[in-house]
Amino acid sequence: MPMPDLSYAPELAVSAWFNTAEPLTLEALRGRVVLLHTFQLLCPGCVAQSIPQVQRIERVFAQTDLQVIGLHTVFEHHDAMSSVTLEAFLHEYRIASPVGVDMADGQSPIPVTMRRYGFRGTPSSVLIGRDGSILHQTFGVEEDLAMGARIATTLAAEGSSV
Amino acid sequence: MPMPDLSYAPELAVSAWFNTAEPLTLEALRGRVVLLHTFQLLCPGCVAQSIPQVQRIERVFAQTDLQVIGLHTVFEHHDAMSSVTLEAFLHEYRIASPVGVDMADGQSPIPVTMRRYGFRGTPSSVLIGRDGSILHQTFGVEEDLAMGARIATTLAAEGSSV
Amino acid sequence: MPMPDLSYAPELAVSAWFNTAEPLTLEALRGRVVLLHTFQLLCPGCVAQSIPQVQRIERVFAQTDLQVIGLHTVFEHHDAMSSVTLEAFLHEYRIASPVGVDMADGQSPIPVTMRRYGFRGTPSSVLIGRDGSILHQTFGVEEDLAMGARIATTLAAEGSSV
Amino acid sequence: MPMPDLSYAPELAVSAWFNTAEPLTLEALRGRVVLLHTFQLLCPGCVAQSIPQVQRIERVFAQTDLQVIGLHTVFEHHDAMSSVTLEAFLHEYRIASPVGVDMADGQSPIPVTMRRYGFRGTPSSVLIGRDGSILHQTFGVEEDLAMGARIATTLAAEGSSV
Repeated sequence: MPMPDLSYAPELAVSAWFNTAEPLTLEALRGRVVLLHTFQLLCPGCVAQSIPQVQRIERVFAQTDLQVIGLHTVFEHHDAMSSVTLEAFLHEYRIASPVGVDMADGQSPIPVTMRRYGFRGTPSSVLIGRDGSILHQTFGVEEDLAMGARIATTLAAEGSSV
Repeated sequence: MPMPDLSYAPELAVSAWFNTAEPLTLEALRGRVVLLHTFQLLCPGCVAQSIPQVQRIERVFAQTDLQVIGLHTVFEHHDAMSSVTLEAFLHEYRIASPVGVDMADGQSPIPVTMRRYGFRGTPSSVLIGRDGSILHQTFGVEEDLAMGARIATTLAAEGSSV
Repeated sequence: MPMPDLSYAPELAVSAWFNTAEPLTLEALRGRVVLLHTFQLLCPGCVAQSIPQVQRIERVFAQTDLQVIGLHTVFEHHDAMSSVTLEAFLHEYRIASPVGVDMADGQSPIPVTMRRYGFRGTPSSVLIGRDGSILHQTFGVEEDLAMGARIATTLAAEGSSV
Repeated sequence: MPMPDLSYAPELAVSAWFNTAEPLTLEALRGRVVLLHTFQLLCPGCVAQSIPQVQRIERVFAQTDLQVIGLHTVFEHHDAMSSVTLEAFLHEYRIASPVGVDMADGQSPIPVTMRRYGFRGTPSSVLIGRDGSILHQTFGVEEDLAMGARIATTLAAEGSSV
């Protein structure tokens, strides 16, 4: 069985969306730079570090066409992190950008999108170029300076449509 | 209608306990200093500040007879913060000291113990003396130095049974 | 040669005082609890950690009879940390409590008081009881909770004259 | 009297250099992106915030041709912040990139380069493009994400010679 070609970002498999009127697809976002970040609402590192960083990123890059997407990749304590709890979590933490629930298919405790990308845990993040390619995938949290530099370089190098 | 006498700490009304083999009562704890701290698992200030402070308190005062008790006082998003979610939360945040679920009685969205003490929100905390009196009640988080000083003064002034 | 009896705090040897009209001596402070903290103005750990902590201690214990004393124990870069630079440092960092310059006697790069106490570097601190005994001596910075607890216990146990 | 043309970065006037074998000039650095940051060794905001940020910038952009230059712009407490003290400061804070002492000319307490740029205090910073133009000048400290984004955009947009 051949390895999946990871140079292109697999499509999202999402069972429910929050903070967006329409479901999002990477296909429809082709042409824009996308930051996909994964979390679980009971993941301490997500709550303390990655989610606040994402919120800083949204503020600093508000004038660009960067699209930030959150993905709730529940792979443990499934009953504890239902959509009801997620909705209240998004409200309490004032997360206003689109968040999708990674689809559970019953074949694995690990949801579908998480399997497609091979995420090792939460938080993880993927920076996707305008052509849909994966430019950088990371597990954990990088420092703000490096994150800001990578996103800005991507926006600049690929010809921003800002 | 007379005001409740708040000089004595009202008894806890708890529907479920975690991290303790037996239910705790303030009556049975008479003779020890008790730090009662309230939280909601989706309260950002609790997760970022008060719970880590309580964990530092438990470590610093481990050799004393201080009894730390957590109380999950859910007054909003009730469906989002069930006992199933609380149990996973305690596991993920490595909270090992006793935590009770403040009892809901259907008369109010505010649970019973929270009403008895008149807590204004989460996080709140109460320091209870060996004689069962309320020595200090606060809403929000105090700085570590003041918290450490108050607990130590209470342990010392009242004749520690350590 | 017998070991010095370190249960009693050696007297300070100070060549210049700031923020006090009169020189301070531990002998004259007998009856009060004293926190002696040492620093060098070019010591990163002092600037970032111990001095801010001392300022928090002064604020939290402002209503007690705790006496805080700073000691500038220069044991390296002597020309770089003159009294002229120290005075500007105290101004810029808004240090308003008494600070003495540990006396250099030409016999050692290590000043006299630092030798008497056997301080291993900066920052160091000593908590001195009302009877002049050394209750605790530390190199580095302890966490606020432990520091607050120790000072409060000392003030309480020895019968505060507040 | 006409306003100076601030679109081009005025040349540095430096009386002493540290951490470089040869004096640096902006003229000789034409073709590279330059981050000029000013500080005083007794400036709390510089020590706590801007200098650590500059050290993070040097690390994150180590593989680019960004040139970081520090400028010690002493405009107060002149006797307290001599070159002797600066040298020890650079050693203790492990500042390894080039630092110049802004030239005092006796006409003002404000040194020459600081006057040329109109810096309002410390810390200040200037981002200079490959053509020698001032791209951004700031007083205080910006957040890491914005700083990383601005430097990366400049390196990318102007055609990095990395």
